[in-house]
Amino acid sequence: MIKARVTVTLKTGVLDPQGKAIEGALSTLGFSGVGQVRQGKVFDVQLDGTDTAKAEADLKAMCEKLLANTVIENYSVTLT
Amino acid sequence: MIKARVTVTLKTGVLDPQGKAIEGALSTLGFSGVGQVRQGKVFDVQLDGTDTAKAEADLKAMCEKLLANTVIENYSVTLT
Repeated sequence: MIKARVTVTLKTGVLDPQGKAIEGALSTLGFSGVGQVRQGKVFDVQLDGTDTAKAEADLKAMCEKLLANTVIENYSVTLT
Repeated sequence: MIKARVTVTLKTGVLDPQGKAIEGALSTLGFSGVGQVRQGKVFDVQLDGTDTAKAEADLKAMCEKLLANTVIENYSVTLT
């Protein structure tokens, strides 16, 4: 079994209101010196088999088709 | 400036309906051999200053107070 982590983050320049809200909340809680906060998503995926090359190719296809909106999001795949 | 990535994931045993929905959607799209999928969150945080020890302590406090629900979620902090 192969375990992988897919991380999906917003591209630079895309507005992130949720991140902005977190920035504000952290300031309100008294954390000083907090700059930009950007929120993304992470998917921990388990795949059958042991072929890591096929797994990486499959995971990239999953990102393109479902997990990420490639117009506004970047993704990275790491096998763990 | 210090850049950090905070990853928040559901603890083992906590139900993840969103992850289950993604499993189903991947099967529908024709991806075979997909086992468990779990979804989490990632926060890219920028902090002023250069004191990495203070930054790590601050980030852990942020997780405890705001970013993670420690009843059902684990978090990890990595400086990037």
